[in-house]
Amino acid sequence: MIIVLKRNITEKDKNNIIDFLQSRSFRVKEIVGEEESILGAVGHNGLDPRQLELMGGVAKVIPISKPYKLASREFKKSDTIFNVGPVTVGGNRVTVIAGPCAVESKEQIIESAYAVKKAGAVMLRGGAFKPRTSPYSFQGLQEKGCQYLKEASELTGLPVVTEIVAPGDADMMKDYVDVFQIGARNMQNFELLKTVGRIGKPVVLKRGMSATIEEWLMAAEYLMSEGNDNIILCERGIRTYENFTRNTLDISAVPIIQQLSHLPVIVDPSHATGLRDKVSPMALAAIAAGANGLVVEVHPDPDKALSDGPQSLYPEQFEKLMCDIKELAPVMDKELT
Amino acid sequence: MIIVLKRNITEKDKNNIIDFLQSRSFRVKEIVGEEESILGAVGHNGLDPRQLELMGGVAKVIPISKPYKLASREFKKSDTIFNVGPVTVGGNRVTVIAGPCAVESKEQIIESAYAVKKAGAVMLRGGAFKPRTSPYSFQGLQEKGCQYLKEASELTGLPVVTEIVAPGDADMMKDYVDVFQIGARNMQNFELLKTVGRIGKPVVLKRGMSATIEEWLMAAEYLMSEGNDNIILCERGIRTYENFTRNTLDISAVPIIQQLSHLPVIVDPSHATGLRDKVSPMALAAIAAGANGLVVEVHPDPDKALSDGPQSLYPEQFEKLMCDIKELAPVMDKELT
Amino acid sequence: MIIVLKRNITEKDKNNIIDFLQSRSFRVKEIVGEEESILGAVGHNGLDPRQLELMGGVAKVIPISKPYKLASREFKKSDTIFNVGPVTVGGNRVTVIAGPCAVESKEQIIESAYAVKKAGAVMLRGGAFKPRTSPYSFQGLQEKGCQYLKEASELTGLPVVTEIVAPGDADMMKDYVDVFQIGARNMQNFELLKTVGRIGKPVVLKRGMSATIEEWLMAAEYLMSEGNDNIILCERGIRTYENFTRNTLDISAVPIIQQLSHLPVIVDPSHATGLRDKVSPMALAAIAAGANGLVVEVHPDPDKALSDGPQSLYPEQFEKLMCDIKELAPVMDKELT
Amino acid sequence: MIIVLKRNITEKDKNNIIDFLQSRSFRVKEIVGEEESILGAVGHNGLDPRQLELMGGVAKVIPISKPYKLASREFKKSDTIFNVGPVTVGGNRVTVIAGPCAVESKEQIIESAYAVKKAGAVMLRGGAFKPRTSPYSFQGLQEKGCQYLKEASELTGLPVVTEIVAPGDADMMKDYVDVFQIGARNMQNFELLKTVGRIGKPVVLKRGMSATIEEWLMAAEYLMSEGNDNIILCERGIRTYENFTRNTLDISAVPIIQQLSHLPVIVDPSHATGLRDKVSPMALAAIAAGANGLVVEVHPDPDKALSDGPQSLYPEQFEKLMCDIKELAPVMDKELT
Repeated sequence: MIIVLKRNITEKDKNNIIDFLQSRSFRVKEIVGEEESILGAVGHNGLDPRQLELMGGVAKVIPISKPYKLASREFKKSDTIFNVGPVTVGGNRVTVIAGPCAVESKEQIIESAYAVKKAGAVMLRGGAFKPRTSPYSFQGLQEKGCQYLKEASELTGLPVVTEIVAPGDADMMKDYVDVFQIGARNMQNFELLKTVGRIGKPVVLKRGMSATIEEWLMAAEYLMSEGNDNIILCERGIRTYENFTRNTLDISAVPIIQQLSHLPVIVDPSHATGLRDKVSPMALAAIAAGANGLVVEVHPDPDKALSDGPQSLYPEQFEKLMCDIKELAPVMDKELT
Repeated sequence: MIIVLKRNITEKDKNNIIDFLQSRSFRVKEIVGEEESILGAVGHNGLDPRQLELMGGVAKVIPISKPYKLASREFKKSDTIFNVGPVTVGGNRVTVIAGPCAVESKEQIIESAYAVKKAGAVMLRGGAFKPRTSPYSFQGLQEKGCQYLKEASELTGLPVVTEIVAPGDADMMKDYVDVFQIGARNMQNFELLKTVGRIGKPVVLKRGMSATIEEWLMAAEYLMSEGNDNIILCERGIRTYENFTRNTLDISAVPIIQQLSHLPVIVDPSHATGLRDKVSPMALAAIAAGANGLVVEVHPDPDKALSDGPQSLYPEQFEKLMCDIKELAPVMDKELT
Repeated sequence: MIIVLKRNITEKDKNNIIDFLQSRSFRVKEIVGEEESILGAVGHNGLDPRQLELMGGVAKVIPISKPYKLASREFKKSDTIFNVGPVTVGGNRVTVIAGPCAVESKEQIIESAYAVKKAGAVMLRGGAFKPRTSPYSFQGLQEKGCQYLKEASELTGLPVVTEIVAPGDADMMKDYVDVFQIGARNMQNFELLKTVGRIGKPVVLKRGMSATIEEWLMAAEYLMSEGNDNIILCERGIRTYENFTRNTLDISAVPIIQQLSHLPVIVDPSHATGLRDKVSPMALAAIAAGANGLVVEVHPDPDKALSDGPQSLYPEQFEKLMCDIKELAPVMDKELT
Repeated sequence: MIIVLKRNITEKDKNNIIDFLQSRSFRVKEIVGEEESILGAVGHNGLDPRQLELMGGVAKVIPISKPYKLASREFKKSDTIFNVGPVTVGGNRVTVIAGPCAVESKEQIIESAYAVKKAGAVMLRGGAFKPRTSPYSFQGLQEKGCQYLKEASELTGLPVVTEIVAPGDADMMKDYVDVFQIGARNMQNFELLKTVGRIGKPVVLKRGMSATIEEWLMAAEYLMSEGNDNIILCERGIRTYENFTRNTLDISAVPIIQQLSHLPVIVDPSHATGLRDKVSPMALAAIAAGANGLVVEVHPDPDKALSDGPQSLYPEQFEKLMCDIKELAPVMDKELT
């Protein structure tokens, strides 16, 4: 913690601050300069910096330590690499997860699973619980959807990823699901994070719509502090003033996460852009920036999709994209898993 | 739905679009201009506009109807006014809710309740479940906190407002609580909205950190579609690039909500600014803009608060603020409830 | 400057950093903690902090001093108060500047001037040079517009405020104009700032569309570093993801500027909201938050205005607003100038 | 223009709107639906939509035509491709412009020019006029800087790109410069756009810090309406709430611009990220997304750079990046120019 002092601070105020910090077991040093003086304070204690900010003579307080520990590169130097069934995630692997936005019927999800497997995807996605902005929209097939996913998984051998939206569903879902997804709207649903963290299955943790990178890593920390290490971070676009695309895909999050954390980071170009013809360019951009994989929406018949059809690729488009990735990955010293 | 056509659209593409719209029961008219032609389509059907956007010959699709119904001023012309125990909310009343960020002990919440009542607050706030960014921070007293709130309420006669963070807590909480609060991070936790909507108690619905006004009203629609009409919307600042304040308080949301909706709208200047000395100016600004009330954090001893102390007012500061509001309200044709 | 060191930094890297800082005349102290160690460095030298960030063993660099000096409250404790002709700006005065968006004709600006004066405005605004998003929109009457402003000023006694858009116009304009306005789009047009700073006339400096408070004060610093002290800062809304209003009026900028700087700060509710019926609530909110004044667009016949008619008040609306302000100001310990 | 009517609109109000539109030469049609009725109006006239929004009975007004013409893909179907000296820009070419942030001395710019040429850059960048946030920072060598650029150009054969910051400098600069750059802060400095448009030399037009894609294309329209067709759009990051990077590079702008406009679009990963080690990943991402080129800051000795050293690549890093691009471009059906 750095405390920048006001130029005209009184000795009394300064001693007051120092006493306060020492009473909280901080080690304090003063550095006197011509233009400003500062107190540097180190300690391992979660003091709210604003508490100091309001003390007499304080110009500004600057926290210095990262609030996440387990998720940090400092805590664990080497990349986290783990397996989901036969699929390796992390390190130099490019892992592509694909499937429709929502599970709509047994046939639709099985057809989707075969289609994405054929093109080269190694996991199947599909929503059984759909968090929709409107209460009047399709809300998902729920448990039945989970069962269909399980069947599609058994037929194709693809592990399945699906979103959980309420802690109460965890027990039911855990028999059907290989990887839990925490959606953007629930990134700071801390009760959900704790519940999912305890189950221990791998998690795809989407970045919140307006989450900072630090808040995103703190959400991962919630999962990890329950003992779960197999987290995949997923960038899916952030909210900005620009609304030509649904969200602004923040591809620079990829190299930043790889610097700050040991966790794998993948990109969802479908939700980020919201429009089919922007999905492939952004998918390739993500791989070129070093992403550990992708989540892509693919639907056997997007025009009839019950949700997010317009951002779903046709199977042929997905095949073309996978071919391009196969060429691109080695240029980046990566290999398609 | 408005479909702007590309200049060089073929007859075949145009007919294709018209057929598609008519098959979905839309009434369609074409308007031909020199620079552009458009199709206007009206109907009552939740078609995803992007589905049209991807059809041949379409330049742009523009949705025209509001997605919320029950929350809209068109659905109900007159202001929603309702009572919480003895307290009237809405219309020309200014309702002030105050109390500490978190319930920390029985003594602290009772002392707070007496202090805010003395100054003129008519409801007591206090968090029993605390959604914290860090898993290592104080998470609230939970059920015990609810009991203390209830005791404070019985002693002072103030109804209590407290945040619910998981659907599973609703049954336990409903015996202790007068008004449920849905926090900013949970504004789109749709499972929680449905659960709370069904309980039927009044709800303070905070605006999500980066929620548009439309999304916020859609969240109210979730509550209302379960049969709950007593919703208080609460502006608490939005996330912007400016980070001198914790969030940017969007006071213009007050007159906008009052135009679009019949629901009362109040303002939380404490979370918006995050710093005590900015709370009173922003509270007064909110009242001057026409807000139906405030939620203000007040703590008997902010320096010892377990959370958000730096943004809590001292009781004396709150008394001063209430005096100013008493003078200000009549200028706005409002009266302090 | 605070340099947070990586936990595993080598002695060599640390000495390297210390040597570098000392070679740039910084005074350096190390503070060793259990979880992190930091170097504190004070000096008066514009080192780019990123230069340190890239050195071996550095985790993070945090600048501590404010980059603005002359504009800061530390440089000058008391409020800047000055006169524009007969009008006092700053301190406890509420100064209202009003008039049409653009000067359209001699008659229109004279009629406007009489109307706003009658209602209680003390300065006249009106654009002679209009920075328009489209090259095909009305660009202003230019020098003729300045002449008309001067005439309106002479007839009514109201000093005039008008925008300058290019350094080359300064000499021509300075004979017609009492206060120069720097528009939001030009807040970082540094050549223009330098030129206007040198002229020495008072300046209304609008906040850039996405300028931080610090950047805004730096723009004031450009004007002040040329010897001009009579600066009025004007908050006019910032760009956010919410686009129900044209911009999001950041009213909290008012108390923040008053803490950081001695310069007066006023608010433009017309450009911020872009819609007439939101102007008065936001104008009152600004005064309640402590603003030193307002710039309000008023047009004798808004329906025929050549630009921004929809956000201009009718003269009767402006009269009503001025009455409300007259009641409100004393509640805030302010008086209408 | 689409006018959504209030449900309860009176016949009188409706006729009023229709009359108004017809008086402005709009062709109007009404479409009556169960839930809403709309008026569609087509015409070629720059009516401010807010003017309608304020008429009785109007719920909402939605503009439908794009405000830019010359810059639009509809106006010109095929990609704009042009030459700058020996260098082809646009189409399937990847054009890399490189050099230091600022011209610091004759030796420095000549050394830079040789270094970037050797690695494969085809144009030289370097600032002679530096728009700096602080009046106390290095402001550039100005005319002398332009002369040094010219010398470096003559020695190496590389055309030079440099920023212009004031209309008054255009005449002097045009003899030294091959391509003018309009910086992000000046994207809406319309006087500068008009002046530079008239000169007729190619222009690199950077996207403003918080400019929408439409505003950016409107700035290009300013240049083009003066008769200048050789515009290169340059995405350089936008301002968002995330400040781990200086700006958030909006790579999706690349495919969007290529859909909306025929102009070439390049990316500046140096200003977008602000940190050297993020430049190469983002440069590659831009190429993978289909960009027509890059502007990259390279300095022979970044540690001694007078501005932006920390985001400048070392010559060796730039050579590595160029090698990667050489491999990547053919995967995207592009070739390095």
